[in-house]
Amino acid sequence: MKITVLGVGGMGSRFAIMLHQAGNDITLVDGWQANVDAIRKDGIQANFNGKQIAEKMPVYTPAEIDKSGIKADLIVVFLKSNQLESMFEQVQALIHPDTYVLCLLNGIGHEDVLEKFVAKDHLILGITMWTAGMTGPGHVELVGDGEVELQNFEPAGKDFALQVVDVFKGAGLNPKYSDNVKYSIWRKACVNGTLNVLCALLDCNIGELGKTREAPELLHTIIDEFAAVAKHEGVDLDTAEVYDHVAATFTADIADHYPSMHQDLVQHHRVTEVDFIDGAVARKGKKYGIATPYCTLLTQLVHAKEQLVGAK
Amino acid sequence: MKITVLGVGGMGSRFAIMLHQAGNDITLVDGWQANVDAIRKDGIQANFNGKQIAEKMPVYTPAEIDKSGIKADLIVVFLKSNQLESMFEQVQALIHPDTYVLCLLNGIGHEDVLEKFVAKDHLILGITMWTAGMTGPGHVELVGDGEVELQNFEPAGKDFALQVVDVFKGAGLNPKYSDNVKYSIWRKACVNGTLNVLCALLDCNIGELGKTREAPELLHTIIDEFAAVAKHEGVDLDTAEVYDHVAATFTADIADHYPSMHQDLVQHHRVTEVDFIDGAVARKGKKYGIATPYCTLLTQLVHAKEQLVGAK
Repeated sequence: MKITVLGVGGMGSRFAIMLHQAGNDITLVDGWQANVDAIRKDGIQANFNGKQIAEKMPVYTPAEIDKSGIKADLIVVFLKSNQLESMFEQVQALIHPDTYVLCLLNGIGHEDVLEKFVAKDHLILGITMWTAGMTGPGHVELVGDGEVELQNFEPAGKDFALQVVDVFKGAGLNPKYSDNVKYSIWRKACVNGTLNVLCALLDCNIGELGKTREAPELLHTIIDEFAAVAKHEGVDLDTAEVYDHVAATFTADIADHYPSMHQDLVQHHRVTEVDFIDGAVARKGKKYGIATPYCTLLTQLVHAKEQLVGAK
Repeated sequence: MKITVLGVGGMGSRFAIMLHQAGNDITLVDGWQANVDAIRKDGIQANFNGKQIAEKMPVYTPAEIDKSGIKADLIVVFLKSNQLESMFEQVQALIHPDTYVLCLLNGIGHEDVLEKFVAKDHLILGITMWTAGMTGPGHVELVGDGEVELQNFEPAGKDFALQVVDVFKGAGLNPKYSDNVKYSIWRKACVNGTLNVLCALLDCNIGELGKTREAPELLHTIIDEFAAVAKHEGVDLDTAEVYDHVAATFTADIADHYPSMHQDLVQHHRVTEVDFIDGAVARKGKKYGIATPYCTLLTQLVHAKEQLVGAK
């Protein structure tokens, strides 16, 4: 299986290294020239659970794909949600009629973008609990354990999805074939749709948010909107369980963590991924005739704040 | 007419000075000891349209009211909305059966607090376009022109309200007896319910808010919620006119102004008056069975932020 990892940040590096170490044919594609240059020169340099390693693999910028002649059997996507469309437009030459795309990104609605580039029955969706951090071009921190849960988007994709599970198993990625990965995706989106957006807007960490008197009602209302829209897509969220799952973070080890959207918006003045979280619920809600005022207003406020801080 | 001005900040000082200069019997009550001390020693010292003046009037703290023996025919209220209840609890000795209360505060729902202390037909409500600023204890800046619009809350209060108009006319306060002051109060509340809350949450001034792509839809949605609740109270807001009225500020002289709620929340870490603006709409909406999700969420976010900045 010829695998292309699209987006070689922290998480892309992790998957590439682990799959490559297991003997798979891996190609890297990344849009950041400095990152590509560093990897091309020295490989991906990683602190891999305390051991310093360097893993060499072929690496390309999107602009180099056309003349590279590379085709992929599987493209594993680790981009920012809002880069998805523009990146796929540049690397269409990678895709042949039998190419599958695996998307493990946080958020919802990525399939709406991906199906412009690959047939629905060649889409595999999932979530991952692995973590990874990037410290500079070509340098990553890969510490701790994780899991992957995935499923073909359409029934016809099941055989290939099971092959992916086998490949991932061989690489130690702890994959699980899911019978209802959509549920897991929506459940995880509820975490991001509450904590990320609220911490970014209120400029606080997870534990501080949890200490406000408003947190429980905010969480309940937002999760209820996610659930109403999910239901219309055949996912019947257990809102009480999801609430407990989110609220548990308020007193967990990650309570002092500033979610990625806070990092994007407040710390680095970058455009956020809100359109694939609360914004996706607002958009889908509008399409289905379901009221999602909290998701809509939160998305508007995040976008307004992006403009106010000059986010790019 | 024995008049007590309750709350001697910038605006209270303006009304007190202008009414006193016109020969009225004025008593001041204020909760800030340093302010009371300064006024007792040197009077209210004002830059009054470029002329430095000092106006001496009797002044009391709320704690001194009981033994002062003072009664008021008219109490003019210039408190922070959230100080209204606790202040009136302390100065009940001012009130006799014929005492009227005139409330010119921004926001809605003050009558719900005031009617605990004075009969509804002794309530007069209004708005003012006068401005005033406080520069320190006993020191104020009173520049420019303004107007007052007022009306008795119940029909029975009309005669007294007309007397107040006469007294204010004599003091140059440009009063107007209104046949529908509730409309003006709701219309003005729409300005505060949009600009104050959004600028405070997004940490921006009025012009910056106006430049965001989200501003028009945010304003429309919030104003629609105000209008739905106002309608239930017999006020039929012209939402298109109100929108134009609010949006006009985006390019007006005050575009570079940070609204008072921004000053309270962001600059001074004070508790805001949101419960008398969007919070009042949310509360009334709930009571009347009208959905007000934007007002509710904005109020929750402001309250959460108050806690995060340690507002007092």
